[in-house]
Amino acid sequence: MTIDEHAPTSAGVTAAAGFRAAGVTAGLKPSGRPDLALVVNDGPSQAAAAVFTTNRVVGAPVVWSRQVVSDGVVSAVVLNSGGANVCTGPDGFLDVHVTAEKVGTALEVSPGDVVVCSTGLIGERLPIDTLLAGVDLAVEALSPDGGPDAAVAIMTTDTVPKTAHVHVDGEQGGWTVGGMAKGAGMLAPGLATMLCVITTDAVLDAETAASALRAATAQTFDRIDSDGCMSTSDTVTLLVSGASRAVPEPADFTAALTQVCAELARALVADAEGATHDIAVTVTGAQTQDAGLAVARAVTRSNLFKAAMFGNDPNWGRVLAQVGTVPESVAAFDPDQLDVTINGVQVCKAGVAFRPRSEVDLAANREVHVLIDLHAGDEAVTVWTNDLTHDYVHENSAYST
Amino acid sequence: MTIDEHAPTSAGVTAAAGFRAAGVTAGLKPSGRPDLALVVNDGPSQAAAAVFTTNRVVGAPVVWSRQVVSDGVVSAVVLNSGGANVCTGPDGFLDVHVTAEKVGTALEVSPGDVVVCSTGLIGERLPIDTLLAGVDLAVEALSPDGGPDAAVAIMTTDTVPKTAHVHVDGEQGGWTVGGMAKGAGMLAPGLATMLCVITTDAVLDAETAASALRAATAQTFDRIDSDGCMSTSDTVTLLVSGASRAVPEPADFTAALTQVCAELARALVADAEGATHDIAVTVTGAQTQDAGLAVARAVTRSNLFKAAMFGNDPNWGRVLAQVGTVPESVAAFDPDQLDVTINGVQVCKAGVAFRPRSEVDLAANREVHVLIDLHAGDEAVTVWTNDLTHDYVHENSAYST
Repeated sequence: MTIDEHAPTSAGVTAAAGFRAAGVTAGLKPSGRPDLALVVNDGPSQAAAAVFTTNRVVGAPVVWSRQVVSDGVVSAVVLNSGGANVCTGPDGFLDVHVTAEKVGTALEVSPGDVVVCSTGLIGERLPIDTLLAGVDLAVEALSPDGGPDAAVAIMTTDTVPKTAHVHVDGEQGGWTVGGMAKGAGMLAPGLATMLCVITTDAVLDAETAASALRAATAQTFDRIDSDGCMSTSDTVTLLVSGASRAVPEPADFTAALTQVCAELARALVADAEGATHDIAVTVTGAQTQDAGLAVARAVTRSNLFKAAMFGNDPNWGRVLAQVGTVPESVAAFDPDQLDVTINGVQVCKAGVAFRPRSEVDLAANREVHVLIDLHAGDEAVTVWTNDLTHDYVHENSAYST
Repeated sequence: MTIDEHAPTSAGVTAAAGFRAAGVTAGLKPSGRPDLALVVNDGPSQAAAAVFTTNRVVGAPVVWSRQVVSDGVVSAVVLNSGGANVCTGPDGFLDVHVTAEKVGTALEVSPGDVVVCSTGLIGERLPIDTLLAGVDLAVEALSPDGGPDAAVAIMTTDTVPKTAHVHVDGEQGGWTVGGMAKGAGMLAPGLATMLCVITTDAVLDAETAASALRAATAQTFDRIDSDGCMSTSDTVTLLVSGASRAVPEPADFTAALTQVCAELARALVADAEGATHDIAVTVTGAQTQDAGLAVARAVTRSNLFKAAMFGNDPNWGRVLAQVGTVPESVAAFDPDQLDVTINGVQVCKAGVAFRPRSEVDLAANREVHVLIDLHAGDEAVTVWTNDLTHDYVHENSAYST
């Protein structure tokens, strides 16, 4: 297959044919910024799949939307910022139901085919009348070019909207995968904390869509960990319109979908709250993928390591100290065989200081590459994270007040 | 038994009879502050026990000292700040060996009975000649009142020395447990990152000492988690002189030892790098101790929760979001039954917002008490942590440079 990222004329969720979208200001945010997005699948297919947070405490929208996608059919996704609708009890669930009813009535689709996503503060009811009035505005604003507007309306502490798409050429003009995501904090694996809608005009059934989505998110959103904190609202929905009439090989579709997810995941890291560095922690020589992942995640969760990165201090001892916390039952390695390389400079060889840390230049680039060789196998895994900064502390010490 | 905290005339490791200690300036620290401590057990008993970090990456001193305590006999503990001697390879191990030889010769004890502890930066060799000259100074300075000096010499980023002791009255004058600890960062369970020496003049064998020490640390040092980062050097050594001739009931001894450990652990939290709040996260209604511990630790490791505490923002949604990350196989609970109370104000009842967060006053006190009721059993567990502050980020972004 040939991937061409520039063929579609629209962007984000409207890059693929068969979709309309809108982003409007309902008035949920005190800032007056756009806060309500709507994505509609005009078909002919309405196949869909979704993955959700693995948190046991979830918002009412997650409870509702899990049910909606269970039959593999979704007609629309409505997303609001300005409130997460989590820990709001039966009243909060009713708010979700009423929202889906409103969207269903306006679009003449079943409310049971409307996914609802909410993001914002936990523990506060949404002003439901404001939200419902916003749905009317959004329906009115729906457009085949509405993808970029929708991407803006789902932003919370994000500083830039995040969209991506790939176009795959083919005999009848090919097919497209497009998407949008939001998330700048509570970004941790299983799944990265965020809301994301991905659309495609390829022809595929719900089962194929679901398996492709699981594979793509496992390699992308599950491998970013900005701050180790898992959200209660993570939702990634994949909508299939089939409007291109093109039927891709499942593997080709998974590859294109993975690329869109990877771009969006990378964009989330690049916009993480207060971060000054995007840090790729790559573990090589792992016996298994799970072992490599466990080691990489241990390092990406170290506040001491992340604070050192903020200080442009290649303090690799903090890397080794985290590697050592992973139990032998989880990851095989000999502590006396560990190598660490930071931005190309091997600072630790076989568990002992090697080239001087002064040779490592961290200040020059936002990206930092930390390479850990376990010398225990052939698997390699990369997890992205951010540094721990004054701005992260500042933003998150004053979020709800 | 009657615990009287004020009977001994000396403090820290010399509160118990049969011990001498010293703290001197060897010159390992650029600051010129005291950096070498020595604790000597003059007997008649030399029974001992120790617990070490569970990190798989450990310093040469840990490798050496594990061997030293394996026979239950320790004559002296030498501790230096100014360098951790971790990831220093065979040369670093030789440095430990030479240090123990030097102490052994000076005190006329076997080098194989000398525990060595080091704390500071990972990956750098210690200036061994400076260290050995410091040992001479320390031996010369040994005194039955040297406990407070020793506690000063093991400080790194600590702002105050930490000592504690309890005296238990008895027929022949009773017995005493005293101790000192250092640690202000890399404080995480299994074991809290620090160096600690505890002494007692009670009469007990090495096996009883070991089982009391395991029980005491599990309830104290294992239940503080300042920053989620486990060290490579943690060592808690218990030395038994038997000089009081008093033979306590094992349960009484464990109780007194637990009290000393609890005081030292609390002092570590109170002096954690950059912290403005000490936060007790108590989980009640847990089915098992392990379940409660897992939930408490999940909360104490949340950067978002800890940053909110710094901002005096009772953002309890971040508490619930962390509780929800604990798998069902680890801790049974119904997310719709969770209660959260912060500083006496119940902000969440049965998983839903209850009293308004504005009623919670966090600014008034350094201590914060978060109570989570799982409603799944009768066990209760408390883990102490700190808030995530600008000063934490500052201190740890510039540690090695």
